[in-house]
Amino acid sequence: MLTYSLSDTGKDSLYLYLYKCIKNDILTGTLPAKTKLPSKRSFAKNLGISNITVENAYGLLASEGYIFSIPKRGYFVSDITFPVHPSHPCNQAGETARTFSDSPFAHTKTFPHAAGNDPNTPAIFADFVSNRTTPESFPFSIWAKLSRETVSAKREELLTNPPCGGIIELREAICAHLKQFRGMQICAEQVIIGAGTDYLYSLLILLLGRDKIYAVENPGYTKIEKVYRSHGVDCRFVNMDSFGILVEELNRKGADIAHISPSHHYPTGIVTPASRRYELLGWAAAHPSRYIIEDDYDSEFRFTARPIPTLQSIDAMERVIYINTFTKSLASTIRISYMVLPPHLLARFYEQLSFYSGTVSNFEQYTLAKFIRGGYFEKHINRMRNHYRFIRDALLAAIRESPLATCSTITEECAGLHFILRLKTPLSDQELVKISKSHGLLLSCLSEYYHGMPPEDYMGYTTLANAIVMNYSGLREADIKEAVRRLSESVLTKGD
Amino acid sequence: MLTYSLSDTGKDSLYLYLYKCIKNDILTGTLPAKTKLPSKRSFAKNLGISNITVENAYGLLASEGYIFSIPKRGYFVSDITFPVHPSHPCNQAGETARTFSDSPFAHTKTFPHAAGNDPNTPAIFADFVSNRTTPESFPFSIWAKLSRETVSAKREELLTNPPCGGIIELREAICAHLKQFRGMQICAEQVIIGAGTDYLYSLLILLLGRDKIYAVENPGYTKIEKVYRSHGVDCRFVNMDSFGILVEELNRKGADIAHISPSHHYPTGIVTPASRRYELLGWAAAHPSRYIIEDDYDSEFRFTARPIPTLQSIDAMERVIYINTFTKSLASTIRISYMVLPPHLLARFYEQLSFYSGTVSNFEQYTLAKFIRGGYFEKHINRMRNHYRFIRDALLAAIRESPLATCSTITEECAGLHFILRLKTPLSDQELVKISKSHGLLLSCLSEYYHGMPPEDYMGYTTLANAIVMNYSGLREADIKEAVRRLSESVLTKGD
Repeated sequence: MLTYSLSDTGKDSLYLYLYKCIKNDILTGTLPAKTKLPSKRSFAKNLGISNITVENAYGLLASEGYIFSIPKRGYFVSDITFPVHPSHPCNQAGETARTFSDSPFAHTKTFPHAAGNDPNTPAIFADFVSNRTTPESFPFSIWAKLSRETVSAKREELLTNPPCGGIIELREAICAHLKQFRGMQICAEQVIIGAGTDYLYSLLILLLGRDKIYAVENPGYTKIEKVYRSHGVDCRFVNMDSFGILVEELNRKGADIAHISPSHHYPTGIVTPASRRYELLGWAAAHPSRYIIEDDYDSEFRFTARPIPTLQSIDAMERVIYINTFTKSLASTIRISYMVLPPHLLARFYEQLSFYSGTVSNFEQYTLAKFIRGGYFEKHINRMRNHYRFIRDALLAAIRESPLATCSTITEECAGLHFILRLKTPLSDQELVKISKSHGLLLSCLSEYYHGMPPEDYMGYTTLANAIVMNYSGLREADIKEAVRRLSESVLTKGD
Repeated sequence: MLTYSLSDTGKDSLYLYLYKCIKNDILTGTLPAKTKLPSKRSFAKNLGISNITVENAYGLLASEGYIFSIPKRGYFVSDITFPVHPSHPCNQAGETARTFSDSPFAHTKTFPHAAGNDPNTPAIFADFVSNRTTPESFPFSIWAKLSRETVSAKREELLTNPPCGGIIELREAICAHLKQFRGMQICAEQVIIGAGTDYLYSLLILLLGRDKIYAVENPGYTKIEKVYRSHGVDCRFVNMDSFGILVEELNRKGADIAHISPSHHYPTGIVTPASRRYELLGWAAAHPSRYIIEDDYDSEFRFTARPIPTLQSIDAMERVIYINTFTKSLASTIRISYMVLPPHLLARFYEQLSFYSGTVSNFEQYTLAKFIRGGYFEKHINRMRNHYRFIRDALLAAIRESPLATCSTITEECAGLHFILRLKTPLSDQELVKISKSHGLLLSCLSEYYHGMPPEDYMGYTTLANAIVMNYSGLREADIKEAVRRLSESVLTKGD
């Protein structure tokens, strides 16, 4: 049975120390996914501690998603390895950590004997995959203040059912924001609020039709394709060149709906230029069934001077649906996203789908409306942009000063919260990820976001391989040098 | 052009008075849905008031959903008539009010000339359809206090991504509640949190399969069928007898999934007895593709002593998915519902759908968890049950003392927030609804919830007609006598 030495717990209480030991073994893979943990009683007996100590440790691990319980079967280790296609920056890291690749009931492994702490498998030091925002970046005191004001001042409104599209104050605030920062001339009624982009994607499938052919970018944010697939609609991968999605391929694959991120593509970082934008609008205008879903998920964090106008703002034919979210720009635990429907789709939405109840509580809608109207959102964005720029610059500088400087190139570092680090290395992407992990780094490679066999000549590069997607938004300044040191070590390793 | 006399606005400001005039004309149907309102400037000129006064009145009407604006086209009257199938008690009245029956762009009516206030069409006095809860019933100060505590104490947790099923504290609190009040022995991990039941219904379609045949109760809550239809799945109406849904017809119609409300059916009020419950479980156990979705939407408000156990709690074969919501028991603007998945479906959920992000913000999940754990939810339910019982008793007494006593019978008044008032009247259901409206009452009839031609002999009654569904949860004590007086007047009218 699993054994830990509990003789020196440092400043930690016994249960917290036990929690950390198990968590570390899960993070390092010593305890693989679906492993059954020992029963509380037998584990307590084995370690010579009380049942309640084990219970507390298991409880904490379960509440953080590292383990899960099954009624009458006990506790099991969650699958916290990142899936083949890593998460999008918008993704909730906490959820990815819970993706099972198989039923936990099917083939649960028996618990390895004496699989204690292995000093050779260090804990995760830096995570370049999940791209979560750091909790300390959230403007907590302002948000708390506005929450309190909302509760005191909006008693009646908080209990009045909102329109299915969301409360009008929030839609007006978003409207004004989009006008000021994205130059979009829309009307508040066109803004539809929903609990996260996944929910809005699902609504759009119902609105645009399950019989349509949906196209997603390849490479791309794999969660979008998963949403389409879970609805059983025909979803096709369409390749990109260095300007964005290929219009010729959209035509060839018979796409009706193109789901794209022209302002800043994930993971390549490509910004689609104006010429391709007009080509895309032309494609959409050519047939009444065609629409473009413009996913503008991180446009707030552009570092260069002038953002290119959104497709929505140069669309004269009502073919573009604009989507954006506050889960990225504010906090991933605030589940508020929105879409902007062209007028004729707005009418269809009210006609066909307005029976669906709103998914965001009045309370948070009013608080967010206050937050935007009060100018706090703009301030927050500016502050975060500066913060991210600082982290990016420090990370780029550290790479330039490291042994990596001579064996890597960096691309697409002007926008978003990631850049691409291309390495000259004999290692395969799988080896790179594995070795980095043994050095305490979570990495993902561009190839993991690509569906199918990538072409030989990929966007001017001889290969799609050996390009690391460096999501740096969760990185702390103090950790940058050490993270780069570990990365250099991983890359300079000569393989297994 | 529309004209109102603004010479005597009483205590109201000019814009508020104008708002009330237009609102009243919309509610009474004088301004029908899709009517285009005059432009602000021409309306202001016509009434001899400032543009800003009209703008304020329009703004308020728009924010409450009575009118809506279309970019570059102006303001239009929303469709606030209730749809053919009226809303379920869970429904958000505010949304129903916004259902368009047709595109507002298609055939907008021109504005009637001189369609001023008609003193013969009174405003709505009592609404027996929407069954919204009264805002004053919400435990506001406790909720505000717990919200504040959550913001102060849970800083870190509020920004930590929750498991896709919801934060564990809330799921544990729900688990304990279900154990205590519904005798359900489940594990917190089986509880999946979602932003409203509509969202959970949609998730269940993805989980159980789009290829399955879904059965809904006839008559029944029409929104459920709308959700299935919007997803394009095969959804069939299955008739009920006085014990609940007919198992023989489930078999005959080839249903895989039966979506039912055995604890308290809407709108009939039927409580399915134990014998039929076992028959239903037997039906579900007979084939691996079969499941029962047990929609327990208002079980908290049972007035009789002992509720019958849930299907979930007597299901030994993992065939029952239990669903309930706080939008009904707490406030419709708090968008938190949950479902309880049997273990094998829980595994499938994690396997196939855990990539979907959670839809409820951490903030409200933590606040609600505190609310339940602190015993406030139980207190609130008890208080509301007493309140509803009081309103029901007063309403029943008022009916007995009215001329209605001799021409009506009352059934199913022991549970939920509605009862059935069967009338002896020569009026058709359509006439009844129309005449009542002219008396300031919003009513719906049982026949409106029935799909297709009802049978001649309906559950022991000679007809399905002339049965009013009396939703009384939004009724104020002070209005009961007057509402019954108006109802008597409507019923005793000899038709047109």
